[in-house]
Amino acid sequence: MRYTLSELAETTGACLHGSGDTVIEKVADITSGEQGSIVFVLNKKYTKHLKTTDASAVIITEEMLQACDKPALVADNPRVVFSKIALLLNPLPTVEPWISPHAVIAEDADVDPSARIEACVVIQSGASIGPGAWLSPGCVIEKNAAIGANTRLFANVTIGDNCTLGDNNILHSGVVIGADGFGFVWDQDSYVKVPQLGTVRIGNDVEIGANTSIDRGAIGDTIVEDGVKIDNQIQLGHNDHVGEHTTISGQSGLAGSVKIGKRCILGGGVAVSDNIEITDNVILAGRSNVANSIKEPGMYASVIPVVEAGKWRRILARIKQLDELAKRIKALELKDK
Amino acid sequence: MRYTLSELAETTGACLHGSGDTVIEKVADITSGEQGSIVFVLNKKYTKHLKTTDASAVIITEEMLQACDKPALVADNPRVVFSKIALLLNPLPTVEPWISPHAVIAEDADVDPSARIEACVVIQSGASIGPGAWLSPGCVIEKNAAIGANTRLFANVTIGDNCTLGDNNILHSGVVIGADGFGFVWDQDSYVKVPQLGTVRIGNDVEIGANTSIDRGAIGDTIVEDGVKIDNQIQLGHNDHVGEHTTISGQSGLAGSVKIGKRCILGGGVAVSDNIEITDNVILAGRSNVANSIKEPGMYASVIPVVEAGKWRRILARIKQLDELAKRIKALELKDK
Amino acid sequence: MRYTLSELAETTGACLHGSGDTVIEKVADITSGEQGSIVFVLNKKYTKHLKTTDASAVIITEEMLQACDKPALVADNPRVVFSKIALLLNPLPTVEPWISPHAVIAEDADVDPSARIEACVVIQSGASIGPGAWLSPGCVIEKNAAIGANTRLFANVTIGDNCTLGDNNILHSGVVIGADGFGFVWDQDSYVKVPQLGTVRIGNDVEIGANTSIDRGAIGDTIVEDGVKIDNQIQLGHNDHVGEHTTISGQSGLAGSVKIGKRCILGGGVAVSDNIEITDNVILAGRSNVANSIKEPGMYASVIPVVEAGKWRRILARIKQLDELAKRIKALELKDK
Repeated sequence: MRYTLSELAETTGACLHGSGDTVIEKVADITSGEQGSIVFVLNKKYTKHLKTTDASAVIITEEMLQACDKPALVADNPRVVFSKIALLLNPLPTVEPWISPHAVIAEDADVDPSARIEACVVIQSGASIGPGAWLSPGCVIEKNAAIGANTRLFANVTIGDNCTLGDNNILHSGVVIGADGFGFVWDQDSYVKVPQLGTVRIGNDVEIGANTSIDRGAIGDTIVEDGVKIDNQIQLGHNDHVGEHTTISGQSGLAGSVKIGKRCILGGGVAVSDNIEITDNVILAGRSNVANSIKEPGMYASVIPVVEAGKWRRILARIKQLDELAKRIKALELKDK
Repeated sequence: MRYTLSELAETTGACLHGSGDTVIEKVADITSGEQGSIVFVLNKKYTKHLKTTDASAVIITEEMLQACDKPALVADNPRVVFSKIALLLNPLPTVEPWISPHAVIAEDADVDPSARIEACVVIQSGASIGPGAWLSPGCVIEKNAAIGANTRLFANVTIGDNCTLGDNNILHSGVVIGADGFGFVWDQDSYVKVPQLGTVRIGNDVEIGANTSIDRGAIGDTIVEDGVKIDNQIQLGHNDHVGEHTTISGQSGLAGSVKIGKRCILGGGVAVSDNIEITDNVILAGRSNVANSIKEPGMYASVIPVVEAGKWRRILARIKQLDELAKRIKALELKDK
Repeated sequence: MRYTLSELAETTGACLHGSGDTVIEKVADITSGEQGSIVFVLNKKYTKHLKTTDASAVIITEEMLQACDKPALVADNPRVVFSKIALLLNPLPTVEPWISPHAVIAEDADVDPSARIEACVVIQSGASIGPGAWLSPGCVIEKNAAIGANTRLFANVTIGDNCTLGDNNILHSGVVIGADGFGFVWDQDSYVKVPQLGTVRIGNDVEIGANTSIDRGAIGDTIVEDGVKIDNQIQLGHNDHVGEHTTISGQSGLAGSVKIGKRCILGGGVAVSDNIEITDNVILAGRSNVANSIKEPGMYASVIPVVEAGKWRRILARIKQLDELAKRIKALELKDK
């Protein structure tokens, strides 16, 4: 696959500077660009690389233009242009309709003839697989679950009974949708299981990372809205509700009945307690702990980054004395009056 | 499935108030109850919903009774009654004995005729599957492993060789029992693997959530006692021992040789260091870090919840100065004498 | 399998004290040693057990020798000797070459005749499996992936297309290698996926724990060098690079483009932010948060261990006042002048 720079400018809407005939065959990293490649520079900090890269063209913002003597595409957000070009040059593989003779499909499952079902996939009774959907080896689709059009399940994904996935989703390997939520009540001398009667409903254009698990609702459903992007190793509890275009980075965990608004950004390793509500447009720094609902958009944090271990030991000793230290300040102030 | 309210009172031991002929067909959430449903109210905070719900009956505590003009079941713990009714109205599916022609079972494996073994399950030599056990597609039972009576393995669960599961367990998809513990010793210029010679032994009435992993012991076994409930994405290290009726919430991690007592409650994201011992009846708040053994029952915590990011930046700067701040307090006190 | 103590001394290079004819059949824990077993004592703290163990021989350091009246092997590092003996007495199972009739292997995949491929393994087009490799049931090897010699994949492991594993690796169940990295750019009203064009390249002698996921690079590859040991439930992001002989304990997570040096030790639950570089020989205590690059070898920490919950509540209140407390100290100091 190869394009001229002017073709790329036209397709992406970026402004062309320099020779439009420059031929681009691949994308590269700014530090490793070579002949035939296009790279992007995110901000002025990396401007110096413009001098040294062997890439044939660059994607930059307008303010970098004067430091650049290469053919260039200029845009407000070079990463967006870069991503579009990367996709043009590396189109997702076309789905070739196929049902592996080694797939095991219930007679009353409804598999669209344009779907691709690979070896050792198991599709149970009443399940439906939409047009253009692609299920890699080892996926299990339980009873009455529904997979939307053009949705891609990588290997060894499990979709629990009655759960539904919309269109154009990507689920990476090891994802588990629709395990029981964690619900038990203590009764005299042991726990009684609270039946988990809901399902999981996932919208369109959702991506879910490797080994993430999303539990079914206890009563009512767990809901992931359109455009949500969820990374690896994440847990969503029963009856969570994630608003559209929210992103959640690796190893974050939501307890049960959490409601997260639209366009939120959760960093990695964020923990949200039961029954919390977070409004739209909230940014949570990595390793945030959310124990109370958040009603105002904005950025929140609670993480302590590492210091040298000896220094940390001294700080930690003081943290434990903190209440006493505060009282000693108070005492000094009173004396001082 | 439908019951009268008086039948439900009798079965659950709750006190009936109002018409015992009220017909109940399903459970619902207090905010979504409709004709034919029963809902519960956990505490007085939600009493207002008693006026607005369309549910046919409610489960409440005695103190809410005067605010209620609907048919009601009264009990000390409405959730327990609710769970029992939910289970009555939504009984777990009966296990229909079956061996899928697409399962792969070693000749010398011992599968009880009342078990259900689905497609693409692999059962290796010497393994045994108890009466009424149910293995969903993609499960792998390695050599000499044993699955107890009425134990349910959801799809894609792996049980390592020689590991044993008791009766009435539920293991959700993606669970891995019996991977090697993390044991290496540095020898001159690289690590030598410490052979992991033990197994995992899991008692009865245990539930284990999606994508959780429990490692085999190094010498001796990793043990999970009866009635333990373990959530998703949890790691238990080699030679851990979890006492009966303890619950562990999502994404908690226990390092090696950790011993946790009976009836403990670990919140989500708790981390316990190597060789720690935690006594019975300990409650650990979410995101607790346990670096020393806990000898007294009670509740422990160490989590810092989020604040607005700018405020957190100022606090963090002060945390780093904490040792110096303490010294300045000391200096002021000395001057002050 | 049984050896005399003098045979074991010779094989491991330890010094023999006492009867070399002592027969050793198994390894045991110091607290459970019995006739025919050998145990090790790590340090003087456990010397007392030397009197009570029923083990036939012990492995100790020289300084413990005078407290010991049993046949003994003496070495600087008893654990290394112990691990070698444990491996001698419990050799890893030999790989018996076999291709299960229930494996599904593409015609143009290249499987070495000495490999073992079990039931429900799927090997796609162009993939290669090296000599002595062993793939347990349910593993999926996608297109053009390569598995090195004597590498062991436990059940239900997924290797993404074009990813490569070196020799003598061990991957535990549920591992996912080569899922897409988490890359999206916001464009007007939704996220655009950044194509993840790289692969994962894993060296030799690497071990990876259950349910860990290692994402493919966005541009260029994610790299794990020789001798790295990775525990369970870990996430490595796109373009991470882990230097040789580094160990990473359970539930740690590296965001994208993280570079970790050689011989580092990451405790459990460590979180490293995007684009961080950590030099060689760094030790990170459990639950460390790394938000800035680390240029000096040494130990770092930021974890707060639990205290009793009421006490923590008071400390937490003070943490939130910390900036104000510091200002009050400042005010006192000024008054004091």
